Amino acid sequence: MLNTLIVGASGYAGAELVSYVNRHPHMTITALTVSAQSNDAGKLISDLHPQLKGLVDLPLQPMSDISEFTDGVDVVFLATAHEVSHDLAPQFLAAGCVVFDLSGAFRVNDGAFYEKYYGFTHQHPDLLEKAVYGLAEWSADKLKEADLIAVPGCYPTAAQLSLKPLIDAGLLDLSQWPVINATSGVSGAGRKAAISNSFCEVSLQPYGVFNHRHHPEITTHLGADVIFTPHLGSFPRGILETITCRLKPGVTKEQVREAFTQAYADKPLVRLYDKGVPALKNVVGLPFCDIGLAVQGEHLIVVAAEDNLLKGAAAQAMQCANIRFGFPETQALI
Amino acid sequence: MLNTLIVGASGYAGAELVSYVNRHPHMTITALTVSAQSNDAGKLISDLHPQLKGLVDLPLQPMSDISEFTDGVDVVFLATAHEVSHDLAPQFLAAGCVVFDLSGAFRVNDGAFYEKYYGFTHQHPDLLEKAVYGLAEWSADKLKEADLIAVPGCYPTAAQLSLKPLIDAGLLDLSQWPVINATSGVSGAGRKAAISNSFCEVSLQPYGVFNHRHHPEITTHLGADVIFTPHLGSFPRGILETITCRLKPGVTKEQVREAFTQAYADKPLVRLYDKGVPALKNVVGLPFCDIGLAVQGEHLIVVAAEDNLLKGAAAQAMQCANIRFGFPETQALI
Amino acid sequence: MLNTLIVGASGYAGAELVSYVNRHPHMTITALTVSAQSNDAGKLISDLHPQLKGLVDLPLQPMSDISEFTDGVDVVFLATAHEVSHDLAPQFLAAGCVVFDLSGAFRVNDGAFYEKYYGFTHQHPDLLEKAVYGLAEWSADKLKEADLIAVPGCYPTAAQLSLKPLIDAGLLDLSQWPVINATSGVSGAGRKAAISNSFCEVSLQPYGVFNHRHHPEITTHLGADVIFTPHLGSFPRGILETITCRLKPGVTKEQVREAFTQAYADKPLVRLYDKGVPALKNVVGLPFCDIGLAVQGEHLIVVAAEDNLLKGAAAQAMQCANIRFGFPETQALI
Amino acid sequence: MLNTLIVGASGYAGAELVSYVNRHPHMTITALTVSAQSNDAGKLISDLHPQLKGLVDLPLQPMSDISEFTDGVDVVFLATAHEVSHDLAPQFLAAGCVVFDLSGAFRVNDGAFYEKYYGFTHQHPDLLEKAVYGLAEWSADKLKEADLIAVPGCYPTAAQLSLKPLIDAGLLDLSQWPVINATSGVSGAGRKAAISNSFCEVSLQPYGVFNHRHHPEITTHLGADVIFTPHLGSFPRGILETITCRLKPGVTKEQVREAFTQAYADKPLVRLYDKGVPALKNVVGLPFCDIGLAVQGEHLIVVAAEDNLLKGAAAQAMQCANIRFGFPETQALI
Repeated sequence: MLNTLIVGASGYAGAELVSYVNRHPHMTITALTVSAQSNDAGKLISDLHPQLKGLVDLPLQPMSDISEFTDGVDVVFLATAHEVSHDLAPQFLAAGCVVFDLSGAFRVNDGAFYEKYYGFTHQHPDLLEKAVYGLAEWSADKLKEADLIAVPGCYPTAAQLSLKPLIDAGLLDLSQWPVINATSGVSGAGRKAAISNSFCEVSLQPYGVFNHRHHPEITTHLGADVIFTPHLGSFPRGILETITCRLKPGVTKEQVREAFTQAYADKPLVRLYDKGVPALKNVVGLPFCDIGLAVQGEHLIVVAAEDNLLKGAAAQAMQCANIRFGFPETQALI
Repeated sequence: MLNTLIVGASGYAGAELVSYVNRHPHMTITALTVSAQSNDAGKLISDLHPQLKGLVDLPLQPMSDISEFTDGVDVVFLATAHEVSHDLAPQFLAAGCVVFDLSGAFRVNDGAFYEKYYGFTHQHPDLLEKAVYGLAEWSADKLKEADLIAVPGCYPTAAQLSLKPLIDAGLLDLSQWPVINATSGVSGAGRKAAISNSFCEVSLQPYGVFNHRHHPEITTHLGADVIFTPHLGSFPRGILETITCRLKPGVTKEQVREAFTQAYADKPLVRLYDKGVPALKNVVGLPFCDIGLAVQGEHLIVVAAEDNLLKGAAAQAMQCANIRFGFPETQALI
Repeated sequence: MLNTLIVGASGYAGAELVSYVNRHPHMTITALTVSAQSNDAGKLISDLHPQLKGLVDLPLQPMSDISEFTDGVDVVFLATAHEVSHDLAPQFLAAGCVVFDLSGAFRVNDGAFYEKYYGFTHQHPDLLEKAVYGLAEWSADKLKEADLIAVPGCYPTAAQLSLKPLIDAGLLDLSQWPVINATSGVSGAGRKAAISNSFCEVSLQPYGVFNHRHHPEITTHLGADVIFTPHLGSFPRGILETITCRLKPGVTKEQVREAFTQAYADKPLVRLYDKGVPALKNVVGLPFCDIGLAVQGEHLIVVAAEDNLLKGAAAQAMQCANIRFGFPETQALI
Repeated sequence: MLNTLIVGASGYAGAELVSYVNRHPHMTITALTVSAQSNDAGKLISDLHPQLKGLVDLPLQPMSDISEFTDGVDVVFLATAHEVSHDLAPQFLAAGCVVFDLSGAFRVNDGAFYEKYYGFTHQHPDLLEKAVYGLAEWSADKLKEADLIAVPGCYPTAAQLSLKPLIDAGLLDLSQWPVINATSGVSGAGRKAAISNSFCEVSLQPYGVFNHRHHPEITTHLGADVIFTPHLGSFPRGILETITCRLKPGVTKEQVREAFTQAYADKPLVRLYDKGVPALKNVVGLPFCDIGLAVQGEHLIVVAAEDNLLKGAAAQAMQCANIRFGFPETQALI
């Protein structure tokens, strides 16, 4: 049994992690923590997220010093703000824990990225170097040895799962940048009070046009330029991405399909569609990324759907943990 | 043309008032104001409520002293917090304006009510005495002479329109309190940042059970006890109330229907259903209160639907203004 | 391992059963069937319900004669129309199967009930006599011996779980009928093409006022009259019931709470709220019925929430099966 | 007063037309008709669309022969299926009416288009030649003389209003096809019973990828190729289009903005955004098309929002009628 600490358990992704760890046959929750300043400190996780009532009724403990929580802990999930993860990850690593960080703090090995997109100066270039980017289907070998896993962002997960097979197989004419139109549910903005998240203010709308921080995360790991336009949708969970690409001349639909089939043949959390296209409802509450495609001439449209809190966050974190510790990849997930 | 000032125009009911006054052939907007402390001061109404873009692009002016805004003003709509209305109404009355207050500050002629339900000590018993409760279908005569109109709450409007014809006709056995189950859209909570209003937190749920401040407003004006249970629903606008009553022995369905027909024969904003029952979608965006009913033995169910921001707030305020100034009752509303 | 047949697997409750049986460590799916006339015959369950893709990709087999499907089958779930269950249940019983029927065909031991509310003449009074009504928390002893289990309706489940502890403890003044206001998601109407189910037509609205077929199911099993008013809500899943009752004079809040605590002390799928009230989102996708309450004087409001497809259908069916076969009550469910 | 007939009034766009004509100071409804075979024949429009109750309670008359309805009629709105419009328009023209057709029957002057995309052989090439395509902001001169107006499709309206100013000003590098990602509310599928429209089946999802009939309508009238990917969204009304284009080298943001400003300077139903981007809620229930844009290097994203039933159907039809008959362009619309 792996003793497991969940830091920042009060948020939406945190609550999903709690649920997964609770169901995992080889993991035990040692504690759930929140910031010592949080209003939620001392409350039960099931008071904030009543769906967990009767399943996990543990308190959210205020954490000011990690040493109170590291004793005997094997695994730490950080579902914390970027700056907080940036500060805590080295401490937990020093305490001998394997750290799965769901924030953006260690996703891109480039200090300037953090200055520009996250507004802080990164202090741990060694960890940026060492961290394994946990796009699980593409990082299995590195994950087995990793101590610090940077779980990818929600949008970048679906975008990369859709584009990597094509780019790796050399099928795209990348002089025409792939156009990624993505729509996310409101939970992507986190559990917080804000006018922009309030029920009456939400409706379908683009945001962060040309300057969302997930854009450079996508391009860095793909090694290719893209146009990424996120939208807010009027639903609580899920991401749908419609990606329009240009194929190299002569590339056939069969080659495209083959690239995906090879990439995901034995990957249980990517579901390829032989016909039709994914819909949001097919993946909400589930750990999958569903991918469908259509080709016309040199034009290719890839459609990907996932639950932003699951394959886009908590499920992928657990998938990485399963790979890291040698459990079945879908343990606790399906 | 009546010069009209809208105070507290930044909220949802405020924006609806702006739209109505803008459409009214005998009213002109002199200014829109918000609290001098508001972050919205200086913005355009159409920046906050972009549906008004191109229709009303006026600024929200910070108001610290009403005297800057009263010059030549005939009509004031107060879409402000209860305490604010309590303080401002006497000032605007002193300046010679006719005041339509959408808050609860003058709805119940009982100082203790404000201590208990609104948490402040009412300083203006003379105005409580003088204010006309603007349940428009039942207050027409008084409205014609009124200078201070307390526009009813959203829930109380539908509840009273449903129950007054029955109580006035003596058809109910009131020893069994009518059970009012009401569900409101999220806009009823106002335009503000709060976890409880955030998109992912809203789902059908009762709140304020046995202690909502609209309960005594209903019972006071009806002169009868009721059980009132409000619910939050996962939709932006609208209220549906399902009211279960006990008829006196021998009262027939025809008598019930006749009571409604007589009460609302020439009332254009109450729509009685001969068959079927109201649905929320029939009234959202419209100034009506729809009422249907079903009888079985001594049991009567009345179903009422309205838009909480319209017949439950802005439309009723304008309806009162139309009556007050002798315009057609539905002017600007349909 | 119990060989398990799911009849009528194409509907919403059917798909949930498929998912549960698939996850159950002591059950195996032998086949999924639909009516031989169904357009869905031959399709994969995961084509109709793509959330099951990769999990259960079995075909929906057309069934005209049950004998093709009964070989070695231990358990049959009937997620079929009432008349179909009425006809099939005796055949499966004769073939030696234990039958869990999710329809209304065997819920009320009264032939006249079927004439009046279901429009057919019941041909199997012996089975009406023999069938065990599977309100799991209240039928455990009988379930252990049962061969034909009539799984309760969605509304009656929440209503009875809310009222039985009170009635059994003699706390209610039943001369004033409990008022049950219930709102269900659209999946309660089944998976079918109908204007009334179409996205643009759905909004909060009562239906079946005074004549819904779940009304007599509730009153028969409670042994008490109630007023039951169902509503359609604009959400896919879930039921919320707000039940207003009259306590006998002198009954205290503590007595009320004690009645619930005793009734559900060791019942894992009923979650009692010490504070606050249930909300729909807390139960959607989960097998629980959540119950909260509030008392004021002689007035009691009980609020119950469940997923209509789970505790209101498939989860309760599986819970009954777990009890029947001696598995942990929540096996496959949480 | 123009005597006005609305054919096919039972659908969603039809009901909006009824509302507009009813409000129009220079139009009178002579009759509302439906197909003689329709189940809705004989019902009141306000029974199908209860929001119209008390406003327009006219019957839906079965029409088998147009001659019963043409006496004294000046204007006909056809809110009918494509084939029906194809057959009826010539008859109404022969009867001397000015015809506004909301179907696709006369939008593209190319017989092959109808064979391929609508499945019927067009019989009226003369009318295809004569019909004026009613993209109101771009057709004003022709509209003033037109007798047969083909009101554009919902998606094409927003797409063309977004792209025409850019193409006409020669700002786009059209060798890279503009990518139009569009999401429509469910009302776009019409008022009908279908599994695909049912509440529980709808979620965000592309459809008609590479083969939607609005694609050739867009490209024909733009004179340029595009990639058009429509999506179904889980909301009743509204369309949002996010259009990604390539600018010619050296084209500036100011040139882009100037092209829009010039095109729509005096067009009251197109609202240009100086900052920010349109959101769906800003236009639902309103006759506007809102347009915003963002530029980065040679990449341009245009975002357009409209109500699919209004600027995408009924409001544009009425706007065309206002232009045709010399009324203010927004009469009855705002």
